[in-house]
Amino acid sequence: MTTIAPPNSPPALSHRLANGLTVIGEPSDAFESAAFTLLTPSGCRYDPDDRLGLASLTCEMMLRGAGSRDSRALVNDLDAMGVEHTETVGISHATFSASSLADSLEPALALYADVVRRPHLPADQLEQGRQVCLQEVYGVEDEPSQKLMNELRRQHYPSPWGRASCGDEAGLNAVTQDEILAFQASHYGPEGSILAVAGRFDWQELLRVAERLFGDWAPTPLTRTPPNRSTTGSRHLPFEGSQCHIGIAYPSVAYRDPEYFQAWSAVGVLSSGMSSRLFTEVREKRGLCYTVYASLQSQVDRAAVLCYAGTTAERAQETLDVTYAELIRLAEGVTVEELGRLKARIKSALILQQESTASRAGTLARDWRHLGRVRSMVEVGELIDAVTADTINAYLAKNPPRDFTMVTLGPEPLRLK
Amino acid sequence: MTTIAPPNSPPALSHRLANGLTVIGEPSDAFESAAFTLLTPSGCRYDPDDRLGLASLTCEMMLRGAGSRDSRALVNDLDAMGVEHTETVGISHATFSASSLADSLEPALALYADVVRRPHLPADQLEQGRQVCLQEVYGVEDEPSQKLMNELRRQHYPSPWGRASCGDEAGLNAVTQDEILAFQASHYGPEGSILAVAGRFDWQELLRVAERLFGDWAPTPLTRTPPNRSTTGSRHLPFEGSQCHIGIAYPSVAYRDPEYFQAWSAVGVLSSGMSSRLFTEVREKRGLCYTVYASLQSQVDRAAVLCYAGTTAERAQETLDVTYAELIRLAEGVTVEELGRLKARIKSALILQQESTASRAGTLARDWRHLGRVRSMVEVGELIDAVTADTINAYLAKNPPRDFTMVTLGPEPLRLK
Repeated sequence: MTTIAPPNSPPALSHRLANGLTVIGEPSDAFESAAFTLLTPSGCRYDPDDRLGLASLTCEMMLRGAGSRDSRALVNDLDAMGVEHTETVGISHATFSASSLADSLEPALALYADVVRRPHLPADQLEQGRQVCLQEVYGVEDEPSQKLMNELRRQHYPSPWGRASCGDEAGLNAVTQDEILAFQASHYGPEGSILAVAGRFDWQELLRVAERLFGDWAPTPLTRTPPNRSTTGSRHLPFEGSQCHIGIAYPSVAYRDPEYFQAWSAVGVLSSGMSSRLFTEVREKRGLCYTVYASLQSQVDRAAVLCYAGTTAERAQETLDVTYAELIRLAEGVTVEELGRLKARIKSALILQQESTASRAGTLARDWRHLGRVRSMVEVGELIDAVTADTINAYLAKNPPRDFTMVTLGPEPLRLK
Repeated sequence: MTTIAPPNSPPALSHRLANGLTVIGEPSDAFESAAFTLLTPSGCRYDPDDRLGLASLTCEMMLRGAGSRDSRALVNDLDAMGVEHTETVGISHATFSASSLADSLEPALALYADVVRRPHLPADQLEQGRQVCLQEVYGVEDEPSQKLMNELRRQHYPSPWGRASCGDEAGLNAVTQDEILAFQASHYGPEGSILAVAGRFDWQELLRVAERLFGDWAPTPLTRTPPNRSTTGSRHLPFEGSQCHIGIAYPSVAYRDPEYFQAWSAVGVLSSGMSSRLFTEVREKRGLCYTVYASLQSQVDRAAVLCYAGTTAERAQETLDVTYAELIRLAEGVTVEELGRLKARIKSALILQQESTASRAGTLARDWRHLGRVRSMVEVGELIDAVTADTINAYLAKNPPRDFTMVTLGPEPLRLK
C-alpha cells in the first residue's frame, strides 16, 4: 500500500510561555511567505443569553485602534505591511489569521499583539461597529442556505454550542460600552491562547519575538461555561421562494476521539468527490440538486455530521427521501473501492494543504486546540493508512447515523420517513 | 523603491501545436503538486438567444462518460487519481481545472482529453443533466446578492457579454440532444484552446504528452459572435425582504490595455484592504454595510468596474449616496500614501499566488487568452513599479468613473443623485 505521509514534511515545534500562551511553529525555507493563526478563548459561547453578538461586536471594535495606533493608523499600517488577514469569532475562540511576505511577519505579530492586549475600544465608534454587526445579522436573513445551516446547528447542538457567532438583533442592540470593555478584559488572555506560525521564519527568533510581545501578558481566569440547556429538535422555517433548503444533522465523534478517522472516512464516502454517494444518487442520477453535501464538523468535546441539499419546492420531499436513505444505508458499510478512491483524494489534499502556509498555520493551531499537541504529517499519514473498509464498517455498526435533527426552509414542511 | 518582482520566479514556457492548441508551462521543483487549466472556446456567448444555458448543459453532460469510461467509471477514476477539479462555463470559454500530486498529472490530462474530445453525451441522462442545470438557475433566484450581480452584468454589458452562463429556465427546457451534440462538435476544438500547467513536471515530457493527447485533435472553425445588441440600462428588481442590494457598474479598460494597471490600481485604492475608501467610508465610519466592494472585471475586449453594497432597506439610499460619492471623488485622484499601501498588498498577493500551483496555472492561461503571451513575474513587477500616483491620476483625469449602470434589488427603488 502506498503510504499517505508526504515527503519533506517540515518539523512542528512548540513552546509554552510561562503565562500559558502556546507558540507552535513549522518553519520551512520552501516559502517566501509566512502565515500565523492566533487563537484566543473569546468565542460566542461566553455571550450572555441576552447579549448574543457581544463577542463579535467586541472583536469588531478591537480593530478600531490599538496600542500606539488609532483606528485609521491601524488599518493603514496593516495594509502597508501587505498583510492578508481575517478575524473571525467562533463558538469557543476568536481567530486572527494573517499571511504576508516573511519580512512582515514580525511587524504583523506586533500589531496583533496590540489588538488583543491593548485595543482602544473607542466609545465614539461603538454605534458604527454595532451597525456593521447588525448588517451581518440582517444579511443572513436574506441568504436562505446560510440561514438554514445556522438554524440547523442551533437546533442540533446543546446550547451554547450551536450558536451563530453573529448574534441577534436584540442582543447586539443591548450591548453597552462597559460590557465590551469587560468582555475584552476577561476573555482575552494568554491562558488557552495559541499562536501558530508556518512558512519562512526562524524558530528561535520567533520565540524571542513571542516572549517580547506576549511574555508579560497577564493571565485572566478562564471562564468555563458548561452547556446549560438542550435545544435539540427538528423544525421548519417558512420561507417564500421557489426553493426548499434541507439540513440534516446527526451526532459523530470529535477530532480527538481515537475513532475520528473512521467517522471522517465514512462521511468522505458519503460526500467527498463526484463519485461519492450523495453526489451520485442525489445529483447525478436524479438531477434533484445543484448542491448537496455532508461534512463532519468537530468541536473539542462534540461533533456532528451536517448535511445540506437545496432544491425546488416540488422536488423537496423526493430530495429528502433520497438523501435520508443514503444516510441510513451508510450503516451497512463502505466498500474497498470507495475507500481506495477516498484515500487518493485525502493524500492529494494533504499535500496541497502543505503547500499553503496559511492553511498549515490553521491546522497547527487546530491540532493544539483539540489534542494539546501537533500531529506530524507522518502521524496523520499513519492514522489514515490504518483505516480500512473493515475498521470503518466496525465503527458504523456501532455508530450508525441516527438521532437526526432536521431543519427545512421553504414554502412547506417535509416529512422524514 | 522596493521592486515588486518576486525572487526565484520560475520560467514560463510556451508551445503551439500544429492544430492551434497552445501549451504553456511553468515547471518548478518547489512543489509536490501539479495543476492545469484547460480553456476551450465554448462559453455561453455561443448560446442561441432562445437556448440560454446550452453551453452549461453541454459541459454538464460531458462529464457523464468519455472515451473508454462510462459515467460511473469517469468520476470513479477521477477521484481515484486524487484530483481536485472544477469545470466552469464563462462568457467566452469553458474552463477545466485540476490539481493533484505530480504523479497524477498525466492520467488526469488523458482523462480530460477524453472529456473534451470524446464525450459520450448519453441521451438517457439528458433529463438528469437538465434538472441539475435548472436547479442552479432556481437556486440563484433565492440568493439575492448573486441574483443582483448577474443582473448588473446583464444590464451593463452589450449582449452577449453580460450573460450568466447558467442560462434560463425556458432555454434549458428547450435544449435537445441534437443541439448538445452539435454544440460540442462545433465549439470544442484546438484552435483557441489553451492548456496551462504549473508545478512539478518536466516541460519536454509535457509537450510529448500534449502531442499524444491533443496532436490529432481536428480543428473546428471558430464561430465568432459579434455583440448583437445593447441591453445597457439601470433597473430595479422588486424583492421582499429586509435588505436592499445595490450594484453599480461603470466602464473600464481591459487587461491587455496599456493603461490597465492604472485603472486596476485606482480600483484598488477604492476597495482593496481595510484602509480602502469604500471600506472606510461605507463600513467603518458609518456602519452602513457588512459587505461593500468594487472590482475590475476584464474580458478580452471590454471591462467594467462592478461595485456591490448590501444593507437594510431603510439605510439603502444613504448607502448608495455614500458609495456613489466615492466613485465620483475617485476622479479627483489618489494619494502617494494610498498607492504605497496598495503596492505592499499587491507585492504580497503576487508572491502568495506564486505559492499555489492551481492559481499559477489559471494566471498563465488567463495571460495567454488576453495577451497571446505570458507575462513573467518580473514583467508584472516592472509594470506595477511603474505605476505612480501621477500616472493613476492622469488616467483618472481622462477616464473618470461615469456612464453608470445601477441595479437595485429590494423593497423600494433608489435614486442615483
